[in-house]
Amino acid sequence: MNMAADDEQQASSSLSSSRAPRAVSLLPTYLTDARAIQKYCKDTAPDGALQLSVAENQMLEDLLVPTLTKLSRSREFFPADAIYYQQTHGREPLRHALKGYLEGLLDLDKDSNGTLDPEGIVVGAGCNAVLENLCVSLAEPGQGVMIPLPYYAAFEFDLGSRAGLEVVPVPTMEHSTYDSSSSNESPPPEAYFVSKAALDAAKQKSIDENGIEPRILLISHPHNPLGICYPPSVMEVMIDWCRDNKIHLVSDEIYAGSVYEKDTADFSSALKLASSPSPETTGLGLGPYVHFVYAFSKDFAISGLRVGVMYSENEEIRLPLQKLNDLCSVSSQTQCLVEDMLKDVSPSSSMPWTQEFLEENQRRIRERKDAWESCLDELGLPHLDSKAGLFCWMDLSEFLPTDGTPSERERALYLELLQEYGLLFTPGDSMKNELPGFFRAVFTAASDHEFELGMERLRKYVQAKRS
Amino acid sequence: MNMAADDEQQASSSLSSSRAPRAVSLLPTYLTDARAIQKYCKDTAPDGALQLSVAENQMLEDLLVPTLTKLSRSREFFPADAIYYQQTHGREPLRHALKGYLEGLLDLDKDSNGTLDPEGIVVGAGCNAVLENLCVSLAEPGQGVMIPLPYYAAFEFDLGSRAGLEVVPVPTMEHSTYDSSSSNESPPPEAYFVSKAALDAAKQKSIDENGIEPRILLISHPHNPLGICYPPSVMEVMIDWCRDNKIHLVSDEIYAGSVYEKDTADFSSALKLASSPSPETTGLGLGPYVHFVYAFSKDFAISGLRVGVMYSENEEIRLPLQKLNDLCSVSSQTQCLVEDMLKDVSPSSSMPWTQEFLEENQRRIRERKDAWESCLDELGLPHLDSKAGLFCWMDLSEFLPTDGTPSERERALYLELLQEYGLLFTPGDSMKNELPGFFRAVFTAASDHEFELGMERLRKYVQAKRS
Repeated sequence: MNMAADDEQQASSSLSSSRAPRAVSLLPTYLTDARAIQKYCKDTAPDGALQLSVAENQMLEDLLVPTLTKLSRSREFFPADAIYYQQTHGREPLRHALKGYLEGLLDLDKDSNGTLDPEGIVVGAGCNAVLENLCVSLAEPGQGVMIPLPYYAAFEFDLGSRAGLEVVPVPTMEHSTYDSSSSNESPPPEAYFVSKAALDAAKQKSIDENGIEPRILLISHPHNPLGICYPPSVMEVMIDWCRDNKIHLVSDEIYAGSVYEKDTADFSSALKLASSPSPETTGLGLGPYVHFVYAFSKDFAISGLRVGVMYSENEEIRLPLQKLNDLCSVSSQTQCLVEDMLKDVSPSSSMPWTQEFLEENQRRIRERKDAWESCLDELGLPHLDSKAGLFCWMDLSEFLPTDGTPSERERALYLELLQEYGLLFTPGDSMKNELPGFFRAVFTAASDHEFELGMERLRKYVQAKRS
Repeated sequence: MNMAADDEQQASSSLSSSRAPRAVSLLPTYLTDARAIQKYCKDTAPDGALQLSVAENQMLEDLLVPTLTKLSRSREFFPADAIYYQQTHGREPLRHALKGYLEGLLDLDKDSNGTLDPEGIVVGAGCNAVLENLCVSLAEPGQGVMIPLPYYAAFEFDLGSRAGLEVVPVPTMEHSTYDSSSSNESPPPEAYFVSKAALDAAKQKSIDENGIEPRILLISHPHNPLGICYPPSVMEVMIDWCRDNKIHLVSDEIYAGSVYEKDTADFSSALKLASSPSPETTGLGLGPYVHFVYAFSKDFAISGLRVGVMYSENEEIRLPLQKLNDLCSVSSQTQCLVEDMLKDVSPSSSMPWTQEFLEENQRRIRERKDAWESCLDELGLPHLDSKAGLFCWMDLSEFLPTDGTPSERERALYLELLQEYGLLFTPGDSMKNELPGFFRAVFTAASDHEFELGMERLRKYVQAKRS
């Protein structure tokens, strides 16, 4: 290396911290391939790729635009007090409205569960923002956040980029009765349930093999990408294990309002299951080890408004969380809008607008899900029976090529679907799934026409591959 | 220690990370004293303390409320595209509007300075939020951010709590011609100017004595708490020193629109002074070492909307900054509001509304400042001649008690002013000022009546102490 090159390298290293490129490296890479591909457009790119990968719900504009228009004009004047610095954890009227909304959504009963303490609520700029602060307050840089597999890929960025935490995967299959080596069947929901043995093993492995001490267990409930809920018995195993091990359970319930198969989903919030109210304490009596995050991005499809919520009754982190939230607060204007939205009553049904909206949203998601799963069943493609969220977890391992590592085989299948059939699904490998060939299909981000086309393309693909 | 106590301690340490209490410990402590004091209320607490400490501008509601009301209704419908995920660094139309606004505000000339590159702009949830991400992208945990004394106390929280950076103070007086030991005069503005010798010394001391390597020089320009601007010659010294030392200059120009003594303030933006456009490059030709942060919280007094802006032409950190900003994005609703505000034209003057507003705001601040400084002059209290910002830097060292450390003496004076005379000023010690007995008086957060009462109380105090 000559001196000029040496100088250049030295100059280059002074241009950024190691955190800057590391943050980018934590982003899911599968979308890089997708960015190079022409997107579908009915008129200009009828062969382009269909976006069935980003968990957005684009079926609600007809309900949202009129309501948001009405609500953003509902106050006679822009509230003068909203001009100035707010309480860093959120405006009091909004936190009180959230208390009522969440108690309803999570089916909390005053007598058996207690009530939410509005001072334990923090409203921040998105679910990722409040989750990051919660984890910063619970764990040191270099410590671990356990997440059952498969998991939402962006958790690695959210927890690693600034908070400096390490994701510790929790495999579940080897501790279940499902035997992937001897079975031709696709794993049943139970194979993804988290057991005490799975938690013990993942924790021990993290310490022994990587020197990473887990401090947090983060679960997605309802589960993204699986589209199912952990039954109460499984939730209780995790709650007990966390309390026994002094590990913090963070239950990400961002899809709690998108449980569209209420009768069979068996959804029960961690806040409900972990509650233990007493006359002496305010709140639910959760103790210090159970925490909750939520946002309006999924259930209400308003991801652009960046409104996340967290709840904790851990007194040690209350003040820190309130103060840290100053670095990611929500605009007072939008806090007022959400407050008004939570208080709004539908003139036609006299129900809370949120309830009417969620029911209609669940109906629409269910319609798409029914159509999608019928298509999969007709094609004989195994899948989990989705009950919540915006997606279906499909087993396409039948189409894996035979050569290469599991990751290479899945990537080849992913690229084939994307490049040759214009189908952009989220590959399971990006979510560290234990078996190759699984994909998440998001069925709510497409128009009706695109959705139909997606099923048509999938049929064509399966027929071509099997013939 | 018995076993029960041991257990308890162990349990207690598992309840939070060390980052949680550390974040709280980084907050300024002087407000803790203030919180215990009855606040002034004309009717119920006429002897309560007057808030002359928090840098807010509360003189603008008559202009803001009608405009924000009008603008939040100006679009026929809530924009459907604003419902969904936005570009993480801000909506394109807003960044383009910001480009035009900032070029005007900072007096950038297309030919001599070039133009801002909208892709170098990041819009985040407050000045603190964009500043934190910028510093995360430039420095490792444990590295230093040099800040000339005295400095805005909250920088320690903003940079230390999550980013893990260390503030490295830059004393200026010993490197100036001002001699505090032999002079009875209060320091002139020049005593606070930053020289190459001061920067060299602070950097070396940080490395030698504390093992902290400075990576960033953060300046407040116009200066909070001094209320003055660094003249272009001083700015150029800092820009050159940073480039020579491969240290990043971050110019916090949050008060750029609150320069109310335009003729004598000698304000010139770092972006203007560091620009060096060429036909080959887009942007201002700043190179990688000069960065800028701004917000609407001060000049437009809308701190509750949490709209911060940063600008950099460092390509190494562009993508990381855009992505990290996902953790502190501004609500799309408020992005639209600010975009509309920047594009609004005053019907009465045909001027951009922002220009008309800033001129009227500057007139109002100047009126308060004139009255406050007349009062100080009448009492023979030394002060800097404020030219920008919302405050005046006062030398009350005449009233320091004689016993104790400098910090103890100033604290006694602070408490006397607060508890006995109902005057809450920001103590210089909270801003690491080099000499005891200096205070920042914010003259824009009080009503007319409270402001008059503040001057009356100050007169009473001075008379009592001198008699």
